[in-house]
Amino acid sequence: MSGRFLSLEGGEGAGKSTQARRLAEALEARGIDVIVTREPGGSEGAEAIRDLLMHGAVSRWSSHAEALLFAAARADHVEKRIRPAIAEGIWVICDRYIDSTRAYQGAQGIDDAAILALHGFGSKGLLPDRTFLLEVAAETGVARAAARDGGDADRFAARDSCFHAQVAAIFDDIAVRESDRVRRIDASGAMEMVTNRLISALTDLLP
Amino acid sequence: MSGRFLSLEGGEGAGKSTQARRLAEALEARGIDVIVTREPGGSEGAEAIRDLLMHGAVSRWSSHAEALLFAAARADHVEKRIRPAIAEGIWVICDRYIDSTRAYQGAQGIDDAAILALHGFGSKGLLPDRTFLLEVAAETGVARAAARDGGDADRFAARDSCFHAQVAAIFDDIAVRESDRVRRIDASGAMEMVTNRLISALTDLLP
Ligand SMILES: Nc1ncnc2c1ncn2[C@@H]1O[C@H](COP(=O)(O)OP(=O)(O)OP(=O)(O)O)[C@@H](O)[C@H]1O
Ligand SMILES: Nc1ncnc2c1ncn2[C@@H]1O[C@H](COP(=O)(O)OP(=O)(O)OP(=O)(O)O)[C@@H](O)[C@H]1O
Ligand SMILES: [Mg+2]
Ligand SMILES: [Mg+2]
Repeated sequence: MSGRFLSLEGGEGAGKSTQARRLAEALEARGIDVIVTREPGGSEGAEAIRDLLMHGAVSRWSSHAEALLFAAARADHVEKRIRPAIAEGIWVICDRYIDSTRAYQGAQGIDDAAILALHGFGSKGLLPDRTFLLEVAAETGVARAAARDGGDADRFAARDSCFHAQVAAIFDDIAVRESDRVRRIDASGAMEMVTNRLISALTDLLP
Repeated sequence: MSGRFLSLEGGEGAGKSTQARRLAEALEARGIDVIVTREPGGSEGAEAIRDLLMHGAVSRWSSHAEALLFAAARADHVEKRIRPAIAEGIWVICDRYIDSTRAYQGAQGIDDAAILALHGFGSKGLLPDRTFLLEVAAETGVARAAARDGGDADRFAARDSCFHAQVAAIFDDIAVRESDRVRRIDASGAMEMVTNRLISALTDLLP
């Protein structure tokens, strides 16, 4: 039987990386083989592209070049890591995926249809079986990320609060329009509670 | 007055890099400001992408990931270097451009319309005012490149002769179908002769 493909989405500090690990443990406890991976990156080639994307000045790449680099990294990740794992029956938990590109590049003015066309070209449009959108108040996410990073910020985190509000609005819009795939998860409160909410939102997929 | 944009295309060892320099000198002698640039690369970001593209095993990137990386590099090069130069009245001579992507990625099975769509997205479809396709017998090009490199080959040069025949066929097809833009240049014989043929094929653009 082929594995399932799950993605975790949401703004900075929402708890995606934390919950990716916790969800993997919960699935393993149920006897499921799981890998946790992330974007941009997740395969050797894609991690090399990630280095180009995450560092340098905010203006290092135009938003069009950036969208092409994300699509290239995702194409490599999907082909070299995600599809092979799913084919072997392994579940894949991906920390950010196409919806992050739609939200972050969309907030920079790139048309959603164009982003999906690049995804169609690079990755044959592969979508997760289920996507969890982790929602917290913007201040909570910023405070969590700041406590974690102590003031370091990558090229995306460094943008202003208006940009992050646009990102949140696009995530929200995707969740509304693609409600078959995307589940909104309240990501406030203790980590254990958030993990329980995630499990509840995928019981129909569990063996 | 805005500058002109010229590209040199053709297979390995045809003499593109040699003629780019010689053509620049010939134009400078006529009082024209010129820059010579190359693809993949030509701007800081694009050169970083070039490093990813040119090194490693032939199988390092899927042909779709590769096409996206070329489009990303070109988007950066066009925005940061080519368009600003043209706007300042400088002529730009580019050693390989979109037709090389169409020929090399096309020979790997990527649809020409898809490559042009990526170019439309990344670079608003910018095309040269004139493209010179340098044509030599395949053996001549291989012998010239081998004498130059002493056996080193990048990820593209390392492919077999059948691949290079397909590349040549696609270049040929582009020249036939886009004859307004593309001039076929006999690149055999002495370097001076080839340079004279290039100058003859752009007299109508000279001030
Ligand atoms: N439910 C929670 N309550 C309190 N703190 C949390 C909670 N979940 C995560 N954290 C902490 O908040 C910080 C950010 O969490 P995490 O790194 O998982 O977020 P993220 O969504 O992956 O962020 P980024 O987008 O920056 O990668 C971490 O230090 C983490 O330990
Ligand atoms: N007309 C010519 N006659 C003989 N040798 C030539 C001629 N033109 C170029 N060469 C030599 O052939 C070699 C290949 O030329 P060049 O590097 O300009 O080709 P290229 O088309 O840029 O190749 P590549 O696709 O590998 O970059 C160089 O050593 C160059 O000096
Ligand atoms: Mg994270
Ligand atoms: Mg050359």
